[in-house]
Order: sequence, then structure tokens, then C-alpha cells
Amino acid sequence: MAQAGGPGAKKGILERLDSGEVVVGDGSFLITLEKRGYVKAGLWTPEAVVDHPDAVRQLHIEFLRAGSNVMQTFTFAASEDNMESKYFEHAEEAIWAVEVLKQSGKPVAATMCIGPDGDMRGVTPGECAVKLVKAGAAIVGVNCRFGPSTSLKTMRLMKEGLRTAGLKAHLMVQSLGFHTPDCGKGGFVDLPEYPFGLEPRVATRWDIQKYAREAYNLGVRYIGGCCGFEPYHIRAIAEELAPERGFLPPASDKHGSWGSSLNMHTKPWIRARARREYWENLLPASGRPFCPSLSQPDA
Amino acid sequence: MAQAGGPGAKKGILERLDSGEVVVGDGSFLITLEKRGYVKAGLWTPEAVVDHPDAVRQLHIEFLRAGSNVMQTFTFAASEDNMESKYFEHAEEAIWAVEVLKQSGKPVAATMCIGPDGDMRGVTPGECAVKLVKAGAAIVGVNCRFGPSTSLKTMRLMKEGLRTAGLKAHLMVQSLGFHTPDCGKGGFVDLPEYPFGLEPRVATRWDIQKYAREAYNLGVRYIGGCCGFEPYHIRAIAEELAPERGFLPPASDKHGSWGSSLNMHTKPWIRARARREYWENLLPASGRPFCPSLSQPDA
Amino acid sequence: MAQAGGPGAKKGILERLDSGEVVVGDGSFLITLEKRGYVKAGLWTPEAVVDHPDAVRQLHIEFLRAGSNVMQTFTFAASEDNMESKYFEHAEEAIWAVEVLKQSGKPVAATMCIGPDGDMRGVTPGECAVKLVKAGAAIVGVNCRFGPSTSLKTMRLMKEGLRTAGLKAHLMVQSLGFHTPDCGKGGFVDLPEYPFGLEPRVATRWDIQKYAREAYNLGVRYIGGCCGFEPYHIRAIAEELAPERGFLPPASDKHGSWGSSLNMHTKPWIRARARREYWENLLPASGRPFCPSLSQPDA
Amino acid sequence: MAQAGGPGAKKGILERLDSGEVVVGDGSFLITLEKRGYVKAGLWTPEAVVDHPDAVRQLHIEFLRAGSNVMQTFTFAASEDNMESKYFEHAEEAIWAVEVLKQSGKPVAATMCIGPDGDMRGVTPGECAVKLVKAGAAIVGVNCRFGPSTSLKTMRLMKEGLRTAGLKAHLMVQSLGFHTPDCGKGGFVDLPEYPFGLEPRVATRWDIQKYAREAYNLGVRYIGGCCGFEPYHIRAIAEELAPERGFLPPASDKHGSWGSSLNMHTKPWIRARARREYWENLLPASGRPFCPSLSQPDA
Repeated sequence: MAQAGGPGAKKGILERLDSGEVVVGDGSFLITLEKRGYVKAGLWTPEAVVDHPDAVRQLHIEFLRAGSNVMQTFTFAASEDNMESKYFEHAEEAIWAVEVLKQSGKPVAATMCIGPDGDMRGVTPGECAVKLVKAGAAIVGVNCRFGPSTSLKTMRLMKEGLRTAGLKAHLMVQSLGFHTPDCGKGGFVDLPEYPFGLEPRVATRWDIQKYAREAYNLGVRYIGGCCGFEPYHIRAIAEELAPERGFLPPASDKHGSWGSSLNMHTKPWIRARARREYWENLLPASGRPFCPSLSQPDA
Repeated sequence: MAQAGGPGAKKGILERLDSGEVVVGDGSFLITLEKRGYVKAGLWTPEAVVDHPDAVRQLHIEFLRAGSNVMQTFTFAASEDNMESKYFEHAEEAIWAVEVLKQSGKPVAATMCIGPDGDMRGVTPGECAVKLVKAGAAIVGVNCRFGPSTSLKTMRLMKEGLRTAGLKAHLMVQSLGFHTPDCGKGGFVDLPEYPFGLEPRVATRWDIQKYAREAYNLGVRYIGGCCGFEPYHIRAIAEELAPERGFLPPASDKHGSWGSSLNMHTKPWIRARARREYWENLLPASGRPFCPSLSQPDA
Repeated sequence: MAQAGGPGAKKGILERLDSGEVVVGDGSFLITLEKRGYVKAGLWTPEAVVDHPDAVRQLHIEFLRAGSNVMQTFTFAASEDNMESKYFEHAEEAIWAVEVLKQSGKPVAATMCIGPDGDMRGVTPGECAVKLVKAGAAIVGVNCRFGPSTSLKTMRLMKEGLRTAGLKAHLMVQSLGFHTPDCGKGGFVDLPEYPFGLEPRVATRWDIQKYAREAYNLGVRYIGGCCGFEPYHIRAIAEELAPERGFLPPASDKHGSWGSSLNMHTKPWIRARARREYWENLLPASGRPFCPSLSQPDA
Repeated sequence: MAQAGGPGAKKGILERLDSGEVVVGDGSFLITLEKRGYVKAGLWTPEAVVDHPDAVRQLHIEFLRAGSNVMQTFTFAASEDNMESKYFEHAEEAIWAVEVLKQSGKPVAATMCIGPDGDMRGVTPGECAVKLVKAGAAIVGVNCRFGPSTSLKTMRLMKEGLRTAGLKAHLMVQSLGFHTPDCGKGGFVDLPEYPFGLEPRVATRWDIQKYAREAYNLGVRYIGGCCGFEPYHIRAIAEELAPERGFLPPASDKHGSWGSSLNMHTKPWIRARARREYWENLLPASGRPFCPSLSQPDA
């Protein structure tokens, strides 16, 4: 039977990663609650926690049901069992943060919001990873700013940097739920669609299953999402890695694997979509023939 | 100050429409709750109402905050102040339904899920509208199956049919939250992306403001959404028609008109997006250069 | 052995069509010679005939080698064996022209540059065809202004109009070599890409084989091209209809059917393209991810 | 008055480049003659020179009229005033060729058909350039296989390689007339559209003006084209660089700069296109909404 968190839900993140478990992260709070009517874009302040606790709680429950093992508190504060430093554009700042957090005595996870081109001063992802580990981070990776395939490119470079330097660390990835192959160094905020026209870029559940599999194959064991990652995207990670983890998330009670729930549809051409090959190979149309496929970033 | 429902929230729908008010409908339940993990695609059964009442209640609250005047109960049952017949593909069935509901003595709203090409037996939208009004419907229109601009094309034909026949009725539109210019007669279920690859087709809030304005200009006064219509889409209707209605919905407390909340952003090129012309003219990219713009329907 | 014109090359066009033959028209002169450096866009005057007769003669030879049975003289003058009236936007003018030409005693072919929406005053394609035949035209159809699939839509309506009116005439189609699904009534000149940005719309040879087959199946027996139709497009018509006509054009000596000439390539993945299914199903990319698929016409 | 070749047409290429002149190359022979019906794709053998000398001569004349200073003989043989080595995928082979040609005593131009990722064994463009110059080449660059912007990326890397190594050479670029941002190392032959579905990728004249300007700004002084480069593309190079060269090519007699020939059109919205800003900013649509923007190369 599927359970939230699965066996061993009480272990700390580092303990889990050390023992070879896959940790499924959570998804998007601010952008998702903006669409639900509780957060104001631009400010992105989390007063919803106070003003509308039920709405926030409901989203937490959805991510848990979807398979998240960890709940990053919405206020970005440190959770009890580890300290996390994130959303740094510059390696230097990230390093300072790690050094400070390290003093807490708890394991430190450090993620940067950089893409394959590195930080704003040209420090490569490989160098960033090395610096963070040397500063004391036990878990390194990226979060936000870039889409699934771009984030994995960065992770590949981080991994390679660590390998070359003879260092070891757990890897962590928290991609956007948006496709951003056209991003520059600054990530999705510089795309003309940010933040109110990103809809055509939203990943399908199948895109996320692919992302989860590729992340796993790369050796990443903390796999989650960031802005644009809705509960069903988190479920897609948990479902893709169910063979490795040995269990499905609770919300899979409402989801047939690879579209299997369509196999009872009255229209035969819809029943024909109830299979993995169909969804794996689908190239979904935008329904927007007057729009381009890529944009030029503003910076 | 913005209030849910605004002045006169206790009036019945027909009474409101008769007095010239705009009624804002609600949005997507099944497809939205599927993404939140509570409904199974293919079956689309509403057991979430019983199993996870908090999740359903939360979505109801979000639509109310977004400006919906009416809550179509999730179970498709009749609400207290009117009877509604909907999701008919065939004019004939829709007419029978209207005749039965008519016996309740309450005003009947009848919507069909047809596009500009009419019903499955070739009855045009104009003829459908005429038949429904002759059968006793006080409100006629379309819901589901087709996207914003396609649904409005159908409404134009319905209106024209009624005008030619010298009949009068209130008009109602509840579009998909997806763009579907490539649909055949059967609507979006026949598109290869249905139901798990529709993401690139999701409308932006600006698309929906345009839809609300065009619907209003066409004379439609019951304006809502169907599958794919998230709370922020409903808010976009309520915001676009705020000048006519005289009030904003509660959730506009968390939404600056036309991106105005970006005007404090630290990056100047993002601040430059805080204006109506920017979002009205944006042609959002899909981030998917390997995908087409349109699909061939399967039927 | 392939011969220019094939058996019976001396017969008049009407005689050929009467005897059930397929007549292959020619292609683009002005737009093609513009790209070769001999005609000025905008003016589109044919002084090249006088100034650079070799260049014009060379293009004539290429169309003949490609399989054209007829050479419309570049100056739009009447050829010896029939009179042709073409490039009319208004049914009325076209009718006057047919009535005048009719007095020559030769068979009259009348084509209009209209799309499925009819002429500028709203006369439908079916009505146009009926009027032209009643005025004396033996051959009716469309040329220029619209791409292959749009031109065939118009032909379908012309055919239907004649059938309904109980009239008979030979059908003739001369499509653009550009895809124009987004055209309005005025055709491709109103598209923002006209005339110097039409490249991404150029039809492949396979698009033209499809066009030739569909035209044939519709009963059209005079099949040619107009602006944008290069010699290899004409060859594609002649090759597609070689089974019906019994011979290949001379230029097929330099063209393996359906890419068969690739079957000796050193790279196996290029050899794999030497087959009909490959090219029939190819959806060719534009290499332009920042460009849209369709345009809004300027008028 | 415009003259073919302009002042000093009798000088050798190296002499011209040494004196700071811009040399305009020629364009596509095989692919262009294939479309005219004289060359067979796949084999790409130049028997047209013998079988149809008029057709070949006509194309030569068109390139000369368009502004080419040099005519690479169609048979790839050496011309009188310099020896050229081209179409090498491997740096090693290119070097051998340069060493052999060097013995002729004439200046050697060496171009490789590589992209930004370098040759098939991973030798970078910078290293290739250095090796070729050290082997004796006076002119180095790229030809064929990649489109305009990709070819310029490679040239940038070659230039940088030479600068770092403290070497000097003239730079030469001969891009495809097709956009190929999606190419892998093997270039356009590996794209699924090669060779019979490349139409949507054909560059506009404006794309080529941009290419010519960027090449010039980069310091490239031998600027021409390869497969897909039609006469009007060569003219676009000559027109863009007319201010620097001091003369226009003969074929500009039939071409108004930046669409100026449209300024007498009867339709005002077409007249409005007679200006530089219009064509520089146009994002031309493909007219193919069912096709993608980019392809996955086959290898």
C-alpha cells in the first residue's frame, strides 16, 4: 500500500541519502498559490501562511499525497533536521552561507540557481560544486531558474567538477516546471513570458517522468521541483522512481500509470492512448500558431 | 472594497441577468482536482466530494475568491435557484432535457458542448439555439469541449440564429481553459494531447481577459469556464469586467492589474513588463521547438 | 523513354483535355526570375524577355524538361491554340474578359485568383464557376494568390457549384508554390511575408506530389503552378501523375523517385531516407524557433 | 554604375584580400542545379557541365551578375590564381591537402566543413585554424554543412584560436543558405530534412544581409555561400557591403534596397513594407503549423 513518505519516514535527509534512498522534494509554492489567488506576483511574499493558512495547508497536503518526503517550509526557514542554503546566484555568497550554516552542526544542503553557464561572475557549475563542498556542504545542486533539461545539464557539469576534484557529495536537483531551453544566464525571470505568460512552457507529467529518470541515472538522489511544479509533477517523480523506491505515493490511487485509466473510454481512439509509448512519444502542440517556439531573453 | 459576489449576491441567476448584471461562472473541477491528486482521469468520477471534502471545499473557495457568482455543484446536480442542462452533443437530447427541467417551474439554462460546426448530426449552432429556446430555455450557450476563441465563434452563430428567428434568450459561455483552434467537431477530447498533454495549450490570464471582453461585447452576460479554467482565469474575467460590474473580486487583493505588481522589481527589464501593452501584445513561446503548433484531431 | 510533352504533343489544350489527358502547366516566371536577378519585385515587369532573353529561355527550357505541356508566354499574351483570361479578383471582370475572348473563336480558359471565400464582392467560388461557364469558358479554375491546399479547397467549391447547376467544364488549378493556410480573401500579397520573406513557406516536392494527386482525384486535369513554383515542383506533378500519363518528364533522368537516389549514400541513416514513407511523413522543421507558424494578414 | 567584380577585377584573390578588399564568393551549384533539373541528388555528380553547358553557364552568369568576384569552377578544380582545399571534415586531411597544394607556389585557401564543436576527432575550430595556417594556408575558414549563424560561431572560434596563437591569416566563410541551429557535428546532412525537405529553412535575403554584416564585423573578408545559396543571396552580400566596397552588383538594377521597390504598390499596406525596419524585424511564418521548429539530427 502506498504511504506518504514510505518506509522510514522519520529519518533525516542526509541519513536517507547516505543509505542510498531517493528523496522526493516538493514543488512550487509561490507561483502555485499565486494562481490560486493567495500570493501577489512581483512581491512574492508569503503572508498567505498567516492570512490563509487553510490554502497553504491544502497545498502542503497535496505535495505530501504526491510523494514528497520533505516539506520545505514555505517561509524558507531551516527545517529541523538539516540546514539549507538556496537561491544563490553567486558562488561566493553561497559559500559564506554554507560556512555559517555549518556552525549549526547539522548537515548542510546548498543549491544554487545557476545554469550550465555558471554564476554571474563566470564561475562554472563544476567550480561552484567544488567550492561548496570544500566549504562544508554535504548536498549540492541547483534549484529554480531553469527547466528540467537545462537543470540536468548543470548537474552533469557539477558532478563532473566534483569527480575531477576527487570530491564526494550528494546531488540535488529542483527544476522549474517550465521548459526554458532559451534562457540566458539569468534564467527564466529574463524571459519575456515571466511571470504571467509562462503557460505554454508548463511541463507535462511525462516530461517530468523523463526528468526524474535522467536525474536518477546521473546519480542525483534528491529530486524535486521549484516554481511551476504542481502536485501532479511531484507525483510523476514518485511514480517514475517507484520501482527503485518500492512504493507509490498516496495520490497514485487517482492516477493510472502511463494513461492506463483511459482504457475504458467509450471512444476507441482515446482508449488507444492508454499506453506508455503513446505518451512518451507525444509532441504536444501549443494551439498557438501565431506564437514562436523560443524567445530572446531580455538580458 | 471587493466582496464575493458583490452587491445583490442573493438574487437568482435569471433575476440578475434580467436586470442586466454580468454573471461570472466558475471553472474547472475535474481536471483541476486531477492535477491536485484527487480525481482519476478517464473515469472523472467525483468521489473526491466524499473522500477529500477539504480539497474540494478549498477549490470552491478559490473560485469564490476569484469572483464566481455561482457555484455549479461539483456533482452536476441542480442548484437551488435554477435548473441547468449541460454537456449535450446532440440538439435532440438537449431539447428533451430542457422540456423535463422546464416542469420544475424554475428557469432553465441549457448549454451544449458544440463548436461552430454544430452538433453531431449537423444541426448548426443557430438552429440548436432556436430549438432550445422554443423548448423553454431562458439561457442558452456552450460549455466545454472548445477553447475561448472557438467557443465565441459558436456563440456568434447562436446569437445570429436567435436574431434571425426573432427569439430572445440570455447567452452563456463556458470555454475550456485550453486553446483549441485545431479541433474537429468532437472538440478537445479528439486532440492527441487529451487529457495528459494539454499543458502547452493552457490560456494565460490575458487570453482570458480578451475572451471576457469579446464575450461581453457579443452580448453574453453569463461568462465562465470549464475544464482547464483555474481560479486565476476566473479572476481574469472578473477583473476585465470590473468596470461594468463596479467591483473587483476578493482575490484581486493579490493581483495587480495588468502586471502592475512588477513595478517594484529590482531588474529594470522586468519592471518594464508592468503595463497593459506588454501583456496584451506578448506572443508567449512554448519552449518546445521540437513540437508543432497544431495537431490533427484523431476523429 | 521520357519525352517533353509526351505523345501527342501537337494537340491543342482543349483537344487534350477532351480526350481525357492530363495537362501539366508551367510554373513561376516573375518570382523565380526575381531571385535569379532579372525582374524587379513590386513592378514585376517582364522586360527580361528583351534584356536577358537567354535567362528567360533557360527557365522555359527548365519547365519543359520538368514536364510542362504548355508554356504560358511570359508576357501573358494569348498563345496560339487557346485564349486565356486570368488573375481576376472579381467575377464580373472575369466574365467580361471571357465574353471578349470568346469572340476569337478559340476555346477560352478562365482562371480567377480567388480563395474559398470567393471574390472581393462575396461571389462564392461555385457562383464564379457557373458565371464563367455560362459566359463561354471551356476551362475554369484558379491561379495564383493561394497555396496548394487552399487552392484545392476553392476548386472543390467550384466543382460543386457546377455540379449543382448541371454545368460541365474542364477544371484547372495553378497554385502558388507557397503554403498559405493563414491567408484572407486577398491571398498571399496581404501576408506580412510578401514578397521578400516567403522562403519558409516554399513547398517541398512531396507537398506538390500530394497536391497533384489530390487535384487529379478531384477531377482537375489541367494542373500547374504559379508564383513560387520552381522547375522541380513542376517535375513533381509530372512524376506523381506518370502512371496515369504513361511517361516521365525529361528531367526525371536526374531524379530518383521518392528519394531513391539516396540509396547509395555512405551514411546508413541517409540511405534510410531513400523511401516513399519517409518523405511522405516528414514534417520539415523551419530551423526558425523564434518565428511563428502562421501570420495575421495585413488586410 | 554597377560593374561585375567592380574596380580591379583582374587582381588575384590574395592580392585583393591583402589590400583590404572584400571578396564576394559564389553560391550553390549542385543543390541549385538539382532544383533546375540538371543534377541528381545523392550522387551529386557534375556531368551537367558536359551534358547541359548552357544551364551551368546561365547559373554562373547569375552569380556574376549578383556580385561574385570569384567563380569556383563547378568541378572543384583549382582556379588559376589560387589553390583551394575544401570540404574536409578532419583537420588532419585538410593539413595534408594544404601541404601538397602549397608546393604549387600559389596562395592556398583552406576551408573546413566543421561547426563550433570542431572536427570529427574533437579538434576545435581554433586548433584547426592554427594547424592550417602553420601548414601554409594564407586563407582559412569554413564552407558548407552549417547555416549562417552557426558558421559565424565557428569563424569566431577560429579567429580566437589564431589570435591566441599569435598567427595571422585571412578569414573566409561560405555558409549554407539554410538555417541549421539544430545541427550536430555532422552538419545539415544529418538533419532529417536533408536533402529533399529543406525548403522551410531557406534563408531570406535579409538573413543574408545580416550574415554579411556580422561576418564583416568579425573581420572576415572573403564572404560567400554554399549549398542553398541562390543568386539573390549572393546579391544580398554584395548589397550589404556596397558602402564598404563602393559599388553595387549588376543585378541590383533589378532590386530596390530594403524593399524600396514596393513603394509604388497600389495597396497601402504593401507600400508600408518598403522600408528597412520592416524587413529587418520580420519574423517570417512557415505556413506549416503541423511542423516543428527544430529537428533532432539522425546522428
